[in-house]
Amino acid sequence: MQRTLVLDCNDKVNESVKICGWVQTRRDHGKIAFLDILDRSGVLQVVCSGEQVKDLGPQDVVCVEGKVASRPPKLINPNLPTGKVELQAEKIEIVSKAEELPFDMGGKELDLQLPTLLDFRGLTLRHPKIKEIFKVQEVVIDAFRESLKKKDFTEFQSPVIIPQAAEGGSEVFEIKYFEHKAYLAQSPQFYKQIMVGVFERVFTVNKTLRAEPSVTTRHLTEATTLDAEFGFIDSWLDVMEMAEYSIKYILERVEKETSPILTSYNTSIPKVPETIPHIKLREAQEIIFKRTGRDNRKEPDLEPEDEREICRWALEEKESDLIFITHYPVSKRPFYTFEDESDPGYTLSFDLLGRGTEWMTGGQRINDVKLLTEKASARGVDIKKSELYLQAFKYGMPPEGGFSFGSERIVMHILGLSNVREASLFPRDMERVDIRLSSLK
Amino acid sequence: MQRTLVLDCNDKVNESVKICGWVQTRRDHGKIAFLDILDRSGVLQVVCSGEQVKDLGPQDVVCVEGKVASRPPKLINPNLPTGKVELQAEKIEIVSKAEELPFDMGGKELDLQLPTLLDFRGLTLRHPKIKEIFKVQEVVIDAFRESLKKKDFTEFQSPVIIPQAAEGGSEVFEIKYFEHKAYLAQSPQFYKQIMVGVFERVFTVNKTLRAEPSVTTRHLTEATTLDAEFGFIDSWLDVMEMAEYSIKYILERVEKETSPILTSYNTSIPKVPETIPHIKLREAQEIIFKRTGRDNRKEPDLEPEDEREICRWALEEKESDLIFITHYPVSKRPFYTFEDESDPGYTLSFDLLGRGTEWMTGGQRINDVKLLTEKASARGVDIKKSELYLQAFKYGMPPEGGFSFGSERIVMHILGLSNVREASLFPRDMERVDIRLSSLK
Repeated sequence: MQRTLVLDCNDKVNESVKICGWVQTRRDHGKIAFLDILDRSGVLQVVCSGEQVKDLGPQDVVCVEGKVASRPPKLINPNLPTGKVELQAEKIEIVSKAEELPFDMGGKELDLQLPTLLDFRGLTLRHPKIKEIFKVQEVVIDAFRESLKKKDFTEFQSPVIIPQAAEGGSEVFEIKYFEHKAYLAQSPQFYKQIMVGVFERVFTVNKTLRAEPSVTTRHLTEATTLDAEFGFIDSWLDVMEMAEYSIKYILERVEKETSPILTSYNTSIPKVPETIPHIKLREAQEIIFKRTGRDNRKEPDLEPEDEREICRWALEEKESDLIFITHYPVSKRPFYTFEDESDPGYTLSFDLLGRGTEWMTGGQRINDVKLLTEKASARGVDIKKSELYLQAFKYGMPPEGGFSFGSERIVMHILGLSNVREASLFPRDMERVDIRLSSLK
Repeated sequence: MQRTLVLDCNDKVNESVKICGWVQTRRDHGKIAFLDILDRSGVLQVVCSGEQVKDLGPQDVVCVEGKVASRPPKLINPNLPTGKVELQAEKIEIVSKAEELPFDMGGKELDLQLPTLLDFRGLTLRHPKIKEIFKVQEVVIDAFRESLKKKDFTEFQSPVIIPQAAEGGSEVFEIKYFEHKAYLAQSPQFYKQIMVGVFERVFTVNKTLRAEPSVTTRHLTEATTLDAEFGFIDSWLDVMEMAEYSIKYILERVEKETSPILTSYNTSIPKVPETIPHIKLREAQEIIFKRTGRDNRKEPDLEPEDEREICRWALEEKESDLIFITHYPVSKRPFYTFEDESDPGYTLSFDLLGRGTEWMTGGQRINDVKLLTEKASARGVDIKKSELYLQAFKYGMPPEGGFSFGSERIVMHILGLSNVREASLFPRDMERVDIRLSSLK
């Protein structure tokens, strides 16, 4: 018999079908037992005899033949897409027997400490509540691509292996590359700028690798990063507008396509007004000082408590869960960041904050090759080694800018997860690459 | 004045517009000169006075204001999307002046040796004939994703950093990972199999890194690979069918969306009959022996000349540019490959050959954890170290399989490029990572 997906059983009442999937739960009621069988389309209740299920346990892969029946009105489950039907099992075949699970996977929540959640990642990812996180990630990434394709952006593939740790910073992984050393890209920044010279508007979804020497709830050594860059901007405001357009587009699709997931995480997408408010860093610091008395007005950046406070302000005063902070000081931004001529010492750059923390970063870049070289050199960056990057600016580059954000962080913030590791399928950090590195010693 | 894209000038005859882009070519005819200006939408002819263009050269970024005019019938260029119009320049502003180019970029072809093409990649990618290659790559990757989304596949992000060189083989890059060693993933194989346990059907577009110790026309150390894997197959034929569906879908979209590029490369998409033919490796060797007298019937694989010969046969006898070769010997396939019970010693695996060379590989995998462990151990693969992978099989895994191919190779084969490096934006090999590694010494 041909396999039927469990969701399609809704249309097969009184018909005989065969479904195949994983046993999610088994509930025994004496002579009768219920199985929840899960396949890629959803989950279905199967009614069996106690005898039929006696050898069955969670995560067993089975095929069940039987007749689809309507549930009695009192037993309809309105929260389940297949909640009006059930399958009366006639024949159950065990396709792949699972070993006994190390913990209960049958509850609505998977109540495990993070290390256990990750030690058993090959299993825990199967829990419905866990896998939902990665359906949201899928939508975020796909919506990012779609938003920019609609604006004439070309998708390109940025390399992971790079010849020099050009952007500076010690947090770069070194590779043994035949007889040489090479490095892993911390961002596709230089390459997306080169590609502006080729396609004018480009984006890339790329792995970025950072040797973060600290174990925080926000940092991964490997992330999937969403990057856009485009030329012929009239001003840096064009860049912020495009970033705003893209993030709104993403949030709309997340709301439309994953609203049951948002509900199960007891959250909703961020509240965004017609236009996301934007204020300069110094204005933000002034507001924070007035509201809290905490005087960080001379600081070059916002500390975590400042980020939370300015987000509270944005929600109270601007009815927005998101806010752009602009004009970070030159010293706090990479060498290629464009300085505001009308506000010397400060850059035409922005961070997007949401619900108390950073979501995204972007800005206008220096497109004049002479100035770019000077700024690099003043920061001790040996940009002459990045020949292809320099070529892009030597041979005609319009005013341009772009933005960047990590898919894991966005998903973490949308769902309100407490640790970014939960938003990475296979999180890597100082202490873990699938397994705990300490176990390798 | 607001910028108009050059393609939109078609609808603006007799109107004043401002266009912005790169000077592609300049043709002087005494008092009159012509510029071809290129932006993301295309290229437009601009008519100027000799005086207006005297300081202009190729790759200069300019904005030109003027009036759009219809071309006289005799001067219409039917091969150019803007061939019926031109812009009468009134004002030309230089936005970014390019240095003198190291070679002529104005011809239809960019006639450079590969090393020069790559030494100046920041510039040469701008040549229309070169950038077209990456429009094809964009379509290939996007069509791959689209084809599988339509079949209920979930996109996931596979990691680049891995804890062990688990699949075996010496061609793996080693990273310094804090106090430990880690490695770069040669393929997402283990992870996509784990993900079958989560979403049943998955795909990933991923960087794969291989320390290829040879400099051939077919090998890169970094590639963008397209991988799919799915469970609940009835047999390995389901895997081959899905691979066939996906590759046909890709080729159809390439034909539909990039046909001017195929024309400029003097090629067309491969001829494919209703069903792509498939034969066992031993059948292929028999055919080759009969046709050429070359007796490789005892060999475990096809050598390059065999691949070409069997493709000639497929075209002559089956009217197909593509052919599946199946049943490679167990010894030539990875340990997880499923053995054909009815043909012991041979695997339920396939390669797709096209136009004389390999395009894709795939097959059914062993889903029984005991057998998988035995097979790994017999090959000297310490699979116990790949804990998450083993978990996926310990806790219930249906019959499953998948396929994989490199986007650069597919593009190379579609366009008939002679070297895979031409199909990589920033190709990496033993000798080059952007710059020639020998220059680092």
